Amino acid sequence: MELDSKKLREFLLKGDRTFLPHISVDCVIFGFHDNQLKVLLLKWRDWGTWCVPGGFVMRNESLDDSAKRTLTERTGLENIFLRQFQVFGDPQRERGKKPFKIMGSSNSWLMERFITVGYWALVEFSKVTPRADWLSEDCQWWEIDRIPKLIYDHNTIVTKALEALRTSLNDHPVGYNLLPEKFTMPQFQRLYETILDESLDRRNFQKKMIALDILEKLPERKTGGAHKAPFLYRFDKKKYERAMKQGLKLGF
Amino acid sequence: MELDSKKLREFLLKGDRTFLPHISVDCVIFGFHDNQLKVLLLKWRDWGTWCVPGGFVMRNESLDDSAKRTLTERTGLENIFLRQFQVFGDPQRERGKKPFKIMGSSNSWLMERFITVGYWALVEFSKVTPRADWLSEDCQWWEIDRIPKLIYDHNTIVTKALEALRTSLNDHPVGYNLLPEKFTMPQFQRLYETILDESLDRRNFQKKMIALDILEKLPERKTGGAHKAPFLYRFDKKKYERAMKQGLKLGF
Repeated sequence: MELDSKKLREFLLKGDRTFLPHISVDCVIFGFHDNQLKVLLLKWRDWGTWCVPGGFVMRNESLDDSAKRTLTERTGLENIFLRQFQVFGDPQRERGKKPFKIMGSSNSWLMERFITVGYWALVEFSKVTPRADWLSEDCQWWEIDRIPKLIYDHNTIVTKALEALRTSLNDHPVGYNLLPEKFTMPQFQRLYETILDESLDRRNFQKKMIALDILEKLPERKTGGAHKAPFLYRFDKKKYERAMKQGLKLGF
Repeated sequence: MELDSKKLREFLLKGDRTFLPHISVDCVIFGFHDNQLKVLLLKWRDWGTWCVPGGFVMRNESLDDSAKRTLTERTGLENIFLRQFQVFGDPQRERGKKPFKIMGSSNSWLMERFITVGYWALVEFSKVTPRADWLSEDCQWWEIDRIPKLIYDHNTIVTKALEALRTSLNDHPVGYNLLPEKFTMPQFQRLYETILDESLDRRNFQKKMIALDILEKLPERKTGGAHKAPFLYRFDKKKYERAMKQGLKLGF
């Protein structure tokens, strides 16, 4: 698809009538599937560089809503837990920013300094159809340890988002919408191991997860395996949601 | 002290030549002393309303530096751990904002919408001499459970900062600069209890704190009490700083 150059020129010249200047959001969208962790990246049309999906805040829109809008536009998903994790406010963070050729010598609000608010989300990536935006020519899932050189400070943004996702396991539950409705403790453990990129002790994990009091043990067992059939669990939705809101109990 | 109305008018009319529009920082400065937790508040001159100390980001300044500058200006303290915790970006957050009388019908950048980045810090309040800024007529420590009605969404900002401070105990050490150089385990425990506003089990606390591997047990004991003299500890500064940087090990 050709870039709509009239639309682009209008956006570069007058976008700040619609959006606040100097502030952007960037969404690090992690995807989990089949014990793999990936991240969604866009390829910018003008530069051919990969970047994290981002957007701007409409003058009458809340910051969180602008991040949700970005997430929905790129993934089609709604009602996804999206968490602010850090603001990136170094005046040099967009070093190397180049004016769009189409602008000639005109100024654009987009060429000025932007402070960006980082959000992360974790989704089941088989449920997502990635969609490029009109400024991008591609949108792909990348394996977390094979991310290319990204624009500006976006590699740092992804690294910090991953740290924040990992730390969040300390105080918030994870798994709803990522695991099948009924799952085994080993499946649940592999989700944590994939996010943390380390193996965990089976007995400690089970003890800790039971103690969180968000799981319901089902009377049936998983069938079909060669070994002794493991128990099945599902999330107690009420308790899970309360834990999401209030955070998990501190470990004291 | 009278408000310098020429300076104010200049700031309202042309402050955005120095500072970025639409973005501010607000610092929730917690003070600990003698098993009390307080928060530093300013009283705005024009409205007589209390608020959290805040500031703006100079056009060539990093966001974090603008928060550090605010903290230093209000407390005289430097090199204090200051942590971003949340961005407040609701378009209605400054509902009730009134133009400064001095401006008449002129527009000011300050009357537009601001998205504010919240930071918290925790200091020893006996070491601090609170200083009002030129827009404020007072600067005081308030007990955490006796905070008055604050401007805009600042009560929410303080509440969220307190939640963030509490959650941070899960992943970062606390105590350096707050406790005497040598301290007993009960002193250390009371710091945590004051922040969390709950009592903790003595044995669990001690076990957990030893496991963090940031304390050095001293050969001497505290003297002068009626009971059996308790052991003295101090922070192993290297290990403490590493834990601040890397975060505490996740509890898996």
